[in-house]
Amino acid sequence: MNNPNSPLILQIVGYKNSGKTTMLAALTKRLKQAGYTVGTAKHDAHDFTMDTPGTDTWKHQEAGADITAISSASRSAIISKRPEPLSDLLAHMRHVDIVLVEGFKQERYPKLILLRSPEDFPLLELTNAIMTAAWPNADAEPHLLPAARFEINDIEGIYSHLLKLLQPIQK
Amino acid sequence: MNNPNSPLILQIVGYKNSGKTTMLAALTKRLKQAGYTVGTAKHDAHDFTMDTPGTDTWKHQEAGADITAISSASRSAIISKRPEPLSDLLAHMRHVDIVLVEGFKQERYPKLILLRSPEDFPLLELTNAIMTAAWPNADAEPHLLPAARFEINDIEGIYSHLLKLLQPIQK
Repeated sequence: MNNPNSPLILQIVGYKNSGKTTMLAALTKRLKQAGYTVGTAKHDAHDFTMDTPGTDTWKHQEAGADITAISSASRSAIISKRPEPLSDLLAHMRHVDIVLVEGFKQERYPKLILLRSPEDFPLLELTNAIMTAAWPNADAEPHLLPAARFEINDIEGIYSHLLKLLQPIQK
Repeated sequence: MNNPNSPLILQIVGYKNSGKTTMLAALTKRLKQAGYTVGTAKHDAHDFTMDTPGTDTWKHQEAGADITAISSASRSAIISKRPEPLSDLLAHMRHVDIVLVEGFKQERYPKLILLRSPEDFPLLELTNAIMTAAWPNADAEPHLLPAARFEINDIEGIYSHLLKLLQPIQK
């Protein structure tokens, strides 16, 4: 086991429509298949919708509650009317093996950079850009960074590389 | 201000269809109107639905994520595939003035007991039953407990009584 209080964190960074959510979902599936516990986090530039109209928790929020929590025998959820920085979101995830983060690109964690076109290359200058996944015709010049390079659909290759970072966690 | 790390907690307890959610929403509105910050928590006997099909966070969960978090500039949310005891839900709410809790009736916090019929009187034996709100013809005999008694629609009366408990918090 890794330090149970510090999961490996990987940010998946790319511009709009570069496939961040698809990549995150594919890696999550692969990691779960291998027996790892996985947390995911996302920054939303807009105001996301959570919960479903008509539920009790929805009514709590409509009445003006600043924060609402629910738990059943198998699940729990919390909705809050204040933003949380990534560090606070991660503080809820100390029990998992790995956290995949969509967005928050100014953060310092190791990053998988999604490259859809050569115009995306400035993303390679972000802190800790350790891997790239490139769409056809958008691969970066090898000299641009000392990152591991993969094709956008090479989930197995990306997963295998991730395993090396996860190695202390034996499953 | 009250101790900022310990909001007042009031449980709203009653059997199915006794009006717990309606009461919680009405008290939340009244407290917000008076300037208090309010947290709400609910125990769900079934498996609640949270989030909306098609959103990115939904896709994270569908891919198998054990826990998923999201933040925008104004809101945040967390969904987890494990239950959380009330104490953990409350740990997320240390910044609010008061938390209204629906259900969790075996917990020890002060309780407002909703009485829909005389068959509900056993609820009065729960720990810390300090107030009742009774539907017509369901008021408990005065000797049954040393609780403050209100009619189910007397939100203002219940709110005023709650204010006495909240007194250390000046708004």
